[in-house]
Amino acid sequence: MTSTAAAAGGLPVAPAAASGGSPVAPVVPARGVRRPLGLDEVRLTDGFWARRQEVNATGTIPHIGHWLDREGWLGNFDLAAAGRLPEGRRGREFSDSEVYKYLEAIAWEIGRQDAAGSADAAAAAADLDARFRDVVARVAAAQEPDGYLNTKFGRPGQEPRWSDLEWGHELYCLGHLFQAAVARRRTRPDADDGLVDVARRAADLVSDVFGPTGIQSVCGHAEIEVGLAELGRALDEPRYLEQAERFVERRGQGTLADIEWGRSYYQDDVPVREATVLRGHAVRANYLAAGAVDVAVDSGDDALLGALRDQWASTAARRTYVTGGQGSHHQDEAFGDDFELPSDRAYSETCAGIASIMFSERLLLADADPTEAARHADLVERTLYNVVATSPADDGRSFYYANTLHQRRPGAPADPEVVSPRAHSSLRAPWFEVSCCPPNVARTFASLAAYFATADADGVQLHQYAPARIATDLGGGRAIALAVETSYPADGLVRVRVDAAPGDAWTLGLRVPSWADGARLRVIAADGAPVEVQDAHPGQIAVARVFAVGDVVELDLPVAPRFTEPDPRTDAIRGTLAVERGPEVFALESVDLAGTALAGVDLADLVVDASVGPREADGRVVVTLRRRATAGEPMIAAEAALVPYHEWAERGPSTMRIWLPTS
Amino acid sequence: MTSTAAAAGGLPVAPAAASGGSPVAPVVPARGVRRPLGLDEVRLTDGFWARRQEVNATGTIPHIGHWLDREGWLGNFDLAAAGRLPEGRRGREFSDSEVYKYLEAIAWEIGRQDAAGSADAAAAAADLDARFRDVVARVAAAQEPDGYLNTKFGRPGQEPRWSDLEWGHELYCLGHLFQAAVARRRTRPDADDGLVDVARRAADLVSDVFGPTGIQSVCGHAEIEVGLAELGRALDEPRYLEQAERFVERRGQGTLADIEWGRSYYQDDVPVREATVLRGHAVRANYLAAGAVDVAVDSGDDALLGALRDQWASTAARRTYVTGGQGSHHQDEAFGDDFELPSDRAYSETCAGIASIMFSERLLLADADPTEAARHADLVERTLYNVVATSPADDGRSFYYANTLHQRRPGAPADPEVVSPRAHSSLRAPWFEVSCCPPNVARTFASLAAYFATADADGVQLHQYAPARIATDLGGGRAIALAVETSYPADGLVRVRVDAAPGDAWTLGLRVPSWADGARLRVIAADGAPVEVQDAHPGQIAVARVFAVGDVVELDLPVAPRFTEPDPRTDAIRGTLAVERGPEVFALESVDLAGTALAGVDLADLVVDASVGPREADGRVVVTLRRRATAGEPMIAAEAALVPYHEWAERGPSTMRIWLPTS
Repeated sequence: MTSTAAAAGGLPVAPAAASGGSPVAPVVPARGVRRPLGLDEVRLTDGFWARRQEVNATGTIPHIGHWLDREGWLGNFDLAAAGRLPEGRRGREFSDSEVYKYLEAIAWEIGRQDAAGSADAAAAAADLDARFRDVVARVAAAQEPDGYLNTKFGRPGQEPRWSDLEWGHELYCLGHLFQAAVARRRTRPDADDGLVDVARRAADLVSDVFGPTGIQSVCGHAEIEVGLAELGRALDEPRYLEQAERFVERRGQGTLADIEWGRSYYQDDVPVREATVLRGHAVRANYLAAGAVDVAVDSGDDALLGALRDQWASTAARRTYVTGGQGSHHQDEAFGDDFELPSDRAYSETCAGIASIMFSERLLLADADPTEAARHADLVERTLYNVVATSPADDGRSFYYANTLHQRRPGAPADPEVVSPRAHSSLRAPWFEVSCCPPNVARTFASLAAYFATADADGVQLHQYAPARIATDLGGGRAIALAVETSYPADGLVRVRVDAAPGDAWTLGLRVPSWADGARLRVIAADGAPVEVQDAHPGQIAVARVFAVGDVVELDLPVAPRFTEPDPRTDAIRGTLAVERGPEVFALESVDLAGTALAGVDLADLVVDASVGPREADGRVVVTLRRRATAGEPMIAAEAALVPYHEWAERGPSTMRIWLPTS
Repeated sequence: MTSTAAAAGGLPVAPAAASGGSPVAPVVPARGVRRPLGLDEVRLTDGFWARRQEVNATGTIPHIGHWLDREGWLGNFDLAAAGRLPEGRRGREFSDSEVYKYLEAIAWEIGRQDAAGSADAAAAAADLDARFRDVVARVAAAQEPDGYLNTKFGRPGQEPRWSDLEWGHELYCLGHLFQAAVARRRTRPDADDGLVDVARRAADLVSDVFGPTGIQSVCGHAEIEVGLAELGRALDEPRYLEQAERFVERRGQGTLADIEWGRSYYQDDVPVREATVLRGHAVRANYLAAGAVDVAVDSGDDALLGALRDQWASTAARRTYVTGGQGSHHQDEAFGDDFELPSDRAYSETCAGIASIMFSERLLLADADPTEAARHADLVERTLYNVVATSPADDGRSFYYANTLHQRRPGAPADPEVVSPRAHSSLRAPWFEVSCCPPNVARTFASLAAYFATADADGVQLHQYAPARIATDLGGGRAIALAVETSYPADGLVRVRVDAAPGDAWTLGLRVPSWADGARLRVIAADGAPVEVQDAHPGQIAVARVFAVGDVVELDLPVAPRFTEPDPRTDAIRGTLAVERGPEVFALESVDLAGTALAGVDLADLVVDASVGPREADGRVVVTLRRRATAGEPMIAAEAALVPYHEWAERGPSTMRIWLPTS
């Protein structure tokens, strides 16, 4: 299968990393037109994302460690090693995976600190490394001689191994283990903690047990696919990719049980290559799609890759919220039908947003067409700003699991000491009975720099914008160094200064977001030549020249606030407008009515004046609202400030809505 | 408690039934301004509802018996009697209750047949009675010596009695047992099958175990309250009402565990008398409210009754679909927030509709203000036509559990031989793993005549309209007989002929539905006097006179199709219109586009022309639709017929929507 497909078609072998080794990134396809620049090549130095990375390092990662200890999910491994399971086991059947995501987050954070290069960073990395080794030792002690690793199954008194593929999450947990091992391998390739060996033994077992003559089924929660594929890439072990391919091909054959929500819940209803849109559980669907891209790319399976591109396009157009969020159903955490996107019942799980970014990013790396790559990067950006950045509170110690677009009743404040049983609490909670989201946010923020830029033989492409230092090599000693200076997204000016360049021509690619009609590009040469100015249309704009040190490329993106109309087929938001500014979606939050003539008015009774565009005043985005005419009450109109959606619910209980009725 | 409250206030003692005994009706309050006319006093002779009663008798009731046998839910009682539980037990923890609802349905159906009085009816009643006795004998054999009765709890190898009040449904099941016993008692008061004694022994046990010094908690699913209250009324046993009162007062004290969805799920968040709106699980909420009305009425607790009236009004205005359906959430089968009424995710459980009718009807019986009574009857009618009549297929052998208002994808046909695991299947299923709805429909249809008319000392009030014969006695030998002739709802003319009347004045009350602006009332005296004509405004219109035999009162209700605008606060249907005609809500179903210029167009791409009102053509309601303008495709407009919502999905897989976008 692999060899034939690879011979028949597929992408070129991916460009080699500057070091000759693997990029320090979560996803490093064997094939593709461009390669990701890793954490050692891109460093976010300031601004919106660097601040979140800092909060992640100092707030979120220690917070997760605290709760994993407190809830006993880490302790489960100690009990396993001591032969004291199942009696003392705590947490849900998938709790092992949170430990692995925590390890992955620490590994990437070590990589980020290593790249920073300061004495403080080295000290931070040393502390993280000690914690990492401690956790790995406890995990490794629980691994069984044949490589099996799970605290919930297989011991006397527990259900047998692989006896509950629908709900047991054993392979799912291992997928996260493999991603943690990949992070360790790529950030500290010479580390002797043993996590990579733990992962290798488990992956070998999976490849045997679920191999060509083994159990002919899949895990109820996709994740093993991305884990195996990337572990295979990191360890140069083709068996793992082949096993990932088997799992992808088996999915949709109905080997899992039919359940209340149908086999579509775990995508076992239709083979991946025959599906036309993502469906079912939104995290499962996106993890599976991401793993299928890995398989399609590395095995040269263009038909599968094409099907996945189509699924992405349909899902983005018909089953994705304006925030980038995915998943309309609370009941099964699932996609709804096309255009079934209710704001008030948006589930928009944080993990689904992260999984969607994983899917989009993998397509971006495979996109031959730069315009396609820009579309995929657009959704990555939309989801990062409006789902992933929304989940954690400002201090990084409480989180949304679900990210509603409309809050009708102010929620009660979450107790910072209490585990929330609810995914739909209206204020952020410190920890959940199902706590997949916090460590998923942590590993994403720690590795975030890897989503910002790529390189090919011709040059460097910037897909996301933040103050950054970029240093890479196009091969053959063609070193490039760039400094990105910007206040984006507060301001639309992105300034890229060339700090090092080879003597020959190369190309700087810059994404122009889909909302950025009217963008302008300026090339300001260090030698004082006249400034070159051109229009920059949405897509990927390329500047090809023999750059000199000191040359500056400026991309000016129009970030004035704008109204966004809904798709007329989306019933739930007919007759409304949203306000966006650059990549940020804005929301009306009740606390911002205080001090206006509309103080105390229920958001349900407000309409936005569509004839007066949103504008900026005193650094905030404001719109004109009026109270809907009701019998016996005077009409009241006032300007009110909106809040970036990712900042909502930071000022006490409130009501909120993104889509504002126009009448 | 009871005695004090009764002394302090409350409604008058309810008027006595014609027979001096209890009306043959499901609800017979001890107090109230009017009493229900029972199955022996009101007989539906033809038309919309009589046809459904016939299908219920010949289709649904046997169908339910078949499935109760086939699924072993009836057999569980035999296993219990044989000491063979728990090994062989089948079905969910509440499966006993379906057997009891089945018994209740049979008991009312026997009463209906007894009232018909024909030889065929007598034969049908005899067959039903034999089946009834067989089932009762099997149920009675499973009852334990102390009165406990439940096949799921209390035996060796089962969980102990009352050990899982949150989810065990033991009291819930007994509530349904009591309602079955009430039906038997009122339809065949002298029957010797023993069901009433079974119920009495169980009710005595409950009153002991959960009495003043017993377990101070409630059942996770309300129902025992209505069951105990009515059994107390039927058997003249004040202990049972007192126990119902205890259960009502204990609710909302937080004696049940907090759960993922919060204690509001089972209304244990706020005391009944402090609540302002129904919330949580919609069936639980309405059953509880109905039982609380029973308690409030009989104990003279005006404060509690007032709170329940306010809850009803708020729920009807803010948390009820245009169909009368209640419950916006699939996840927890629950009410949403105010104005959270998405069409596409409407749960609108059939049982919630029935429970809402139970709540409304109890308020109606207690309403001193006839206008209030008309409002309650309005919602009963809306819910009967558009929820209860929608659930069963035309043959009465498959059912909706959930009643969506918007179907985007055609569903697969349900297999008539397969139990559906899903409550949200888009075609009706013959049986469900949770199969509360089919027997709930059956008992409601069998007892439906009891919802049509009431009497007080001054006369008779008609609340619902159908061809019917009504015969009652106002007391003191003041006999009244009425014949109702109508094609309602197809036609708006309701003709009430006086077939017997006392010699003195009395009052005929007629409900004018809220949608019936422009209704006219005519009194056509048998003596040839000039016809009296007057406007009939929505509410209750009263005709007081010395009626003669042959006098006719005609109510002419305008049933021309009309557009209905949504409340502007209901986000999900902003910018749409619904079409109603009389009490029926209409829907656009994709199969009706065939043969028009819009054949094959996705309903998502259609808008209704609001400038052209709905009209009738060839006996159908038609509207003008056009395909929404999209790039490159011509505008198409056409007239298309709508279907009464209760008739949808009878012609194969289809898509459907009630609320039609206007642009």
